[in-house]
Amino acid sequence: MRAMVFHGPGQKSWDTVPDPVISAPTDAIIRVEAVTICGTDLHILKGDVPEFTPGRILGHEAVGTIVEVGSGVHTRTVGERVLISCISACGACRFCREGHYGQCLGGGGWILGHLIDGTQAELVRVPFADTSTYPIPDGVPAEQMLMLADILPTSFEVGVRNGAVQPGDTVAIIGAGPIGLAAILTAKLYSPGHIVAIDLADSRLDAAAKLGADVTVNSGRDNPADAIRELTGGLGADVTIEAVGVPETFEAAVELVRPGGHVANIGVHGAPATLHLEQIWIRDLTITTGLVDTNSTPRLIDLVANGRLDAAALITHRFTMSEFATAYDTFANAGEAGALKVVITAEQG
Amino acid sequence: MRAMVFHGPGQKSWDTVPDPVISAPTDAIIRVEAVTICGTDLHILKGDVPEFTPGRILGHEAVGTIVEVGSGVHTRTVGERVLISCISACGACRFCREGHYGQCLGGGGWILGHLIDGTQAELVRVPFADTSTYPIPDGVPAEQMLMLADILPTSFEVGVRNGAVQPGDTVAIIGAGPIGLAAILTAKLYSPGHIVAIDLADSRLDAAAKLGADVTVNSGRDNPADAIRELTGGLGADVTIEAVGVPETFEAAVELVRPGGHVANIGVHGAPATLHLEQIWIRDLTITTGLVDTNSTPRLIDLVANGRLDAAALITHRFTMSEFATAYDTFANAGEAGALKVVITAEQG
Amino acid sequence: MRAMVFHGPGQKSWDTVPDPVISAPTDAIIRVEAVTICGTDLHILKGDVPEFTPGRILGHEAVGTIVEVGSGVHTRTVGERVLISCISACGACRFCREGHYGQCLGGGGWILGHLIDGTQAELVRVPFADTSTYPIPDGVPAEQMLMLADILPTSFEVGVRNGAVQPGDTVAIIGAGPIGLAAILTAKLYSPGHIVAIDLADSRLDAAAKLGADVTVNSGRDNPADAIRELTGGLGADVTIEAVGVPETFEAAVELVRPGGHVANIGVHGAPATLHLEQIWIRDLTITTGLVDTNSTPRLIDLVANGRLDAAALITHRFTMSEFATAYDTFANAGEAGALKVVITAEQG
Amino acid sequence: MRAMVFHGPGQKSWDTVPDPVISAPTDAIIRVEAVTICGTDLHILKGDVPEFTPGRILGHEAVGTIVEVGSGVHTRTVGERVLISCISACGACRFCREGHYGQCLGGGGWILGHLIDGTQAELVRVPFADTSTYPIPDGVPAEQMLMLADILPTSFEVGVRNGAVQPGDTVAIIGAGPIGLAAILTAKLYSPGHIVAIDLADSRLDAAAKLGADVTVNSGRDNPADAIRELTGGLGADVTIEAVGVPETFEAAVELVRPGGHVANIGVHGAPATLHLEQIWIRDLTITTGLVDTNSTPRLIDLVANGRLDAAALITHRFTMSEFATAYDTFANAGEAGALKVVITAEQG
Repeated sequence: MRAMVFHGPGQKSWDTVPDPVISAPTDAIIRVEAVTICGTDLHILKGDVPEFTPGRILGHEAVGTIVEVGSGVHTRTVGERVLISCISACGACRFCREGHYGQCLGGGGWILGHLIDGTQAELVRVPFADTSTYPIPDGVPAEQMLMLADILPTSFEVGVRNGAVQPGDTVAIIGAGPIGLAAILTAKLYSPGHIVAIDLADSRLDAAAKLGADVTVNSGRDNPADAIRELTGGLGADVTIEAVGVPETFEAAVELVRPGGHVANIGVHGAPATLHLEQIWIRDLTITTGLVDTNSTPRLIDLVANGRLDAAALITHRFTMSEFATAYDTFANAGEAGALKVVITAEQG
Repeated sequence: MRAMVFHGPGQKSWDTVPDPVISAPTDAIIRVEAVTICGTDLHILKGDVPEFTPGRILGHEAVGTIVEVGSGVHTRTVGERVLISCISACGACRFCREGHYGQCLGGGGWILGHLIDGTQAELVRVPFADTSTYPIPDGVPAEQMLMLADILPTSFEVGVRNGAVQPGDTVAIIGAGPIGLAAILTAKLYSPGHIVAIDLADSRLDAAAKLGADVTVNSGRDNPADAIRELTGGLGADVTIEAVGVPETFEAAVELVRPGGHVANIGVHGAPATLHLEQIWIRDLTITTGLVDTNSTPRLIDLVANGRLDAAALITHRFTMSEFATAYDTFANAGEAGALKVVITAEQG
Repeated sequence: MRAMVFHGPGQKSWDTVPDPVISAPTDAIIRVEAVTICGTDLHILKGDVPEFTPGRILGHEAVGTIVEVGSGVHTRTVGERVLISCISACGACRFCREGHYGQCLGGGGWILGHLIDGTQAELVRVPFADTSTYPIPDGVPAEQMLMLADILPTSFEVGVRNGAVQPGDTVAIIGAGPIGLAAILTAKLYSPGHIVAIDLADSRLDAAAKLGADVTVNSGRDNPADAIRELTGGLGADVTIEAVGVPETFEAAVELVRPGGHVANIGVHGAPATLHLEQIWIRDLTITTGLVDTNSTPRLIDLVANGRLDAAALITHRFTMSEFATAYDTFANAGEAGALKVVITAEQG
Repeated sequence: MRAMVFHGPGQKSWDTVPDPVISAPTDAIIRVEAVTICGTDLHILKGDVPEFTPGRILGHEAVGTIVEVGSGVHTRTVGERVLISCISACGACRFCREGHYGQCLGGGGWILGHLIDGTQAELVRVPFADTSTYPIPDGVPAEQMLMLADILPTSFEVGVRNGAVQPGDTVAIIGAGPIGLAAILTAKLYSPGHIVAIDLADSRLDAAAKLGADVTVNSGRDNPADAIRELTGGLGADVTIEAVGVPETFEAAVELVRPGGHVANIGVHGAPATLHLEQIWIRDLTITTGLVDTNSTPRLIDLVANGRLDAAALITHRFTMSEFATAYDTFANAGEAGALKVVITAEQG
């Protein structure tokens, strides 16, 4: 089969490699129908993720059709179309029992396209198939589902639900890249009073406004604190969601929240931030961090299936697998290309 | 009347001053029966609290008897013995409506012995008496009640409840001063599996063990991470409670907690800490800060009245008001004196 | 002044009566600008509420302008336009401290137009004005606010929040009268997957569909269980909301819910129901009852002010106070008149 | 092997039967070390559980040692000592994903000794072994663990946690049989202010007092409402737990609870109860029902292992498997025998 293989920092290619095989009774082999590229894949390509070693296949998001299952798989069947979650769940450890699949101690967690071969391939082996894949309802397009592999549950669980967004809240979302935009989409499920999107790029803020932000602030030109103060009688946002991953934006998230408010960090950070405890010890803050668990995936599938959530609104570019290199270039140059999420579809048989 | 008056950094005296008078219809004047000294009072005396100006009376914890009420007071009566809470609550603002009295926007919050004259006096004016005082049940000693003015609700609300302590949890409490010890007493209400007390002073750790810590670690000699790892199969504590107020202990609290765990900050901080987001963004942490609200006070009163909580276990020294200076010296030199909480009682008749 | 006075079962009139006066320091006198009629007022007129004695003024919902305040009122001022809540809150009892104003032990709760003179008058005395009235934001029409005095917070708190509606849920609302319709409006704040409205009257079901029900079932013709089974893979509704108040509809609410689901009773009942414990002991149900607390009122005001909630969508008829008798007739014959909520406005000048 | 086989109403015997065999890859075969008898087993014997057909082996609680595992079992190993839960969990269905194993849609739930052969045997086949068995920590006696197969998690989850018991609460437990007594043991983990045990038998009330009830009421002689009113200032219990399973006791649980309180039904009911909605619609009650999920089992194991919970306090009689008939007689005549829980141990060698 063909697959997108990492060959060391800055190097990848669409190689011919051996087909994957069942290696544990709980595995399934899935023929990939559509796949996307995550910001994390770019980090891996830069060499920022040392446990990802050369020779491994990239990707942790896909939809496809099951072509083989191990003897221990009891709920999935050959021929079934499924969503492959970015998180694999052993289903039996203490964290899986609590729905904290992202923290799986039994060999799951984020392993696809990280610790084992990933989904950017014609075929992929998925461990713990019973608890790591989700049937696709009839009539739901593959690309809608594909957005539920990672970005939508991440923004919903780690941003919106950790932030405890409530109807009427003022929610400030810092960062209007794909994950911040997904947070706008999923925050709207709770009818906040105001969604304030904050970014340095007007093009991203335009996208934020289109997807539902009520107020946009270019923080290179304007102080977001002014906008939020005006909306909240000077108090601050009920919820701030950090969707960038650098110290400055996290610190801004802490500054912009009201007493008693929630700061939900989604960003993947590479450096520590300063926490101004001398200011916030007295302010009743709740600050959360998290890797997605994907325990919300079934709920999000229902919302998409019922037309309550347009997950595909994040997709700007579509390619076939033979154009995989171009897809990576487009996504890596998102600014110029005006790219949010890209979809890469298998060639028609 | 006599009162403990602040005269600038390092200077205080037990002065004769005018009796307080009702200045708003919601005020009460209360004759103080017993009062205590808080670590915060020592900070004020050092000059660390700039809004506390010379000439003001210290103290925010007391029990006493109501001697006069304003025309708007509808639930308290002259002659009633009450606990005076460290937090005054206007009862009408958005935060008071949610039980977040500590964040009162209507002129309450922590004002006694801070923004207005305090309780270390023979008489004190208490604003918003209906919502800022609590009747003392028959048969409950004044000194048991006195511990519910600040230290017990602080440790319970900001430490134990914010930390979401559950039966069976491993709870690490960093700092075994009065507030950390109060956190031990109140954490025990939820039957944690292990309470680990961490401090640099063996004398404090001895007190911790007496009050219910299962494991004590002198962090000057031993690494608390080792003890916690052993108790938790290497995962970390379910809950860590910071009860010191310096960057190092906060950073330790974040380090010692397990994935998915809670870090509850009680400490009053004067400097920022470093938050290692590059390590914790993926660990599903919940970090909370807070000023006490005292919304748990009625519940704590019941627990004391029913013998479920021995709040007076924190009291080591007792004085009369004529010995107020000695009481301060004892508390200020807690280490030498073996002092935890001191009680100062009004002179008889 | 003029007021709608009860003169025994079936008898009421728009009488000239003495103006109300401040009788406690926490009272305010308010000039009524607009008022509505509640289904409960019809029950009172039938004689079903024995504690409502002849000579008393009806009504517990209004907006108006404060004309006088008692000496203990500290947050409201003469000239301020406010919403008068159906629930008065002493602000100091254990239930008020928890936001359970409806259960107030300090002389509040539902008293207006019940235990004391009500709001269907040119002037009304409102006890505990600080905690029982809400300022009206600039630019928000009186009639939008008026719907927040009772019906919207009741449906939101007792129906939607007690029922724990979540994004994607299937919510069955039994009864499409004003309170059931308000439950549709407020359930939508949480983006349920399907709202199923159930009633015996097609006209009410038409209104339900207009206000946001996705599926309507005339239970005189069709079995709602069939519709719900089809939507939920045979499991049952995630949440059922009872908004009628007779045994049959409550029993249906219990039957239609899925294992692990919530049954939220809003209906005012006059007779017991049969609870089929032999069927439900094993089904993990949560059944709630409740009187409104109105602790959500500030949040609902924000939602209306921000255009997230169109509370006035429930209003079908408008009158002036001189037409009060006609307003009652219209509301009492809601079926014929196609009436949902009626608004009665004070005469100009 | 030998096993306790049902032969129709009133008939059972300790028969020689074929050894169980692995029939699905997720199965394990376990050699039983100790087993107990549940009240439900007596119901089955009376013929009250029609889906339990003659020829089937009784029992759903045991500890033992794994002797064989299917190819799909990935976390359990031959030779491991485990607790067998009364609830089997497929681990993959929507309810298992939420920890609601009792409602498993994938072939689990309460199946052992109900829909398939049970644990009262020398060997038992346990489906979904990864998610339905729990390793026994070193040093924890088998009989302590055995109490965690059903009765302790049932009382903890369905009674104490559904009832939301909080420190300081007044908790009324109706029924002081084994399940009510287990509710006393587990309620104490939250330090309620008062536990009131209510029963008709003084011998059961004596046991309740020994296990931690503060107040006991023989409801044949005294009115429990009087005792509860006295403890709660007339308000009612914060939480009532129904642990009998007849209409009268459920109705009492609803009557004895305070406004805003919780009624947690544990009892297995065979007949409907009357729900006095005309009284409770206004009282803000939360009424819950439930089958145990056993998601608390790991936590309870920790509490037992750490000496926080003495589960074995419920055991009054011990037998070997050759005395199984006597064990049943003793448990069936609990009143005369003074029996609570009985333990039946496999013969040595």
